[in-house]
Amino acid sequence: MIKELENELADKFDIHFTNHALLDEAFTQASYVNEHPNRGLKFYERIEFLGDAVLQLTVSEYIYKRYPQMPQGELTRLRAAMVQEDSFSKFAVECHFDQYIRLGHGEEMAGARQRSSLLCDIFESFIGALYLDQGKDAVVSFISKVIFPKLDQGWFDNEVDYKTSLQEFLQRNGDVDIDYTVIKEEGPANARRYTVGVSADDQQIGTGTGTSKKHAEMDAAKNALQDLRQNQQ
Amino acid sequence: MIKELENELADKFDIHFTNHALLDEAFTQASYVNEHPNRGLKFYERIEFLGDAVLQLTVSEYIYKRYPQMPQGELTRLRAAMVQEDSFSKFAVECHFDQYIRLGHGEEMAGARQRSSLLCDIFESFIGALYLDQGKDAVVSFISKVIFPKLDQGWFDNEVDYKTSLQEFLQRNGDVDIDYTVIKEEGPANARRYTVGVSADDQQIGTGTGTSKKHAEMDAAKNALQDLRQNQQ
Repeated sequence: MIKELENELADKFDIHFTNHALLDEAFTQASYVNEHPNRGLKFYERIEFLGDAVLQLTVSEYIYKRYPQMPQGELTRLRAAMVQEDSFSKFAVECHFDQYIRLGHGEEMAGARQRSSLLCDIFESFIGALYLDQGKDAVVSFISKVIFPKLDQGWFDNEVDYKTSLQEFLQRNGDVDIDYTVIKEEGPANARRYTVGVSADDQQIGTGTGTSKKHAEMDAAKNALQDLRQNQQ
Repeated sequence: MIKELENELADKFDIHFTNHALLDEAFTQASYVNEHPNRGLKFYERIEFLGDAVLQLTVSEYIYKRYPQMPQGELTRLRAAMVQEDSFSKFAVECHFDQYIRLGHGEEMAGARQRSSLLCDIFESFIGALYLDQGKDAVVSFISKVIFPKLDQGWFDNEVDYKTSLQEFLQRNGDVDIDYTVIKEEGPANARRYTVGVSADDQQIGTGTGTSKKHAEMDAAKNALQDLRQNQQ
């Protein structure tokens, strides 16, 4: 089973583990160890402890460098959105990690393989194993394929409330009138595309697009914020 | 002022910054930037965001490797004790970082320089700057002098409750009678040294020493736990 995982990691991510035992440990739940008491197995929890911290740092460093103007509060909110259980469990499924978890019979019957908290744990423990085996650069290379592209795909835009951030930014020195207007609506009903403009005191400061008005507004706020911060420099 | 800090870092830790602006930023509070609006200064918060994650990982990795038998729950408690505000603010003072913070006049008058939360922030931002300028190995080398020796000095022993951990470990499979007894008491009143033995069902499983009975008991529990876990392997 771990052999198949290794093949998949090699094919998809060009990852080749040296210490196969680490990978075994990262994908083994305590329930499986308990069912096989004489095989000297280890379960993933300690590696997960490490992987959690590896993800915190690699994600922090990436967004710190990618958004050189973003204030600490916003960086913290964005990181929280990126490193949460809901995100990690989705990444785990996307990488087919759910197929390779070694579970005890009871846990299997109880549907643990689909449980978001377990999937999140396994994503973290995989990262911990990758870090121990291949170092930080290998982790960065992996999450550059699995996590970072989601930023551009807008996965975390709802978590970082750009509309509120824009409002806070503009109203630091007094009241400003902020308006969002739909500029364009196009495409068929099942693939509608909205373009929205945002203005401050009747002057347009940004535009954005999205599959709903809400998403287009968020995108417009994000773009406006980025321009405003760059001009401030 | 930053020049003096650089001299001290060079003398005490053999640290030589390449990007001096990073060090400036790490020691500058927003209040100081606000008082000097035309100097294009930056304040420490973004670097602190990064430094916090660097410390999480470097401390996690150290205790993960140092205690190969320690279960996740205990690792998590120990890390929490090591990376908390109270610990970091003491390390900041020990390194004289408090002397080099650039504060606005109002904050200075309000006693911010002695404020634990600010000292903690500055310790984290220093680590962030060191990481950006010199990489992870330089951070590990620095905290190997400033943080890790505290483990042996017992700084975090009260946070990790070894007596409770030992009890949990021994009583997994039923009730066990655990006793702590003072074996030896020596030294003058102001430098008393206690040696304590711990037994499980009347069989001695460890001894420990300390400057109080409580510390000696904690040390005995810690040693007993370590032996028990090693024998379990």
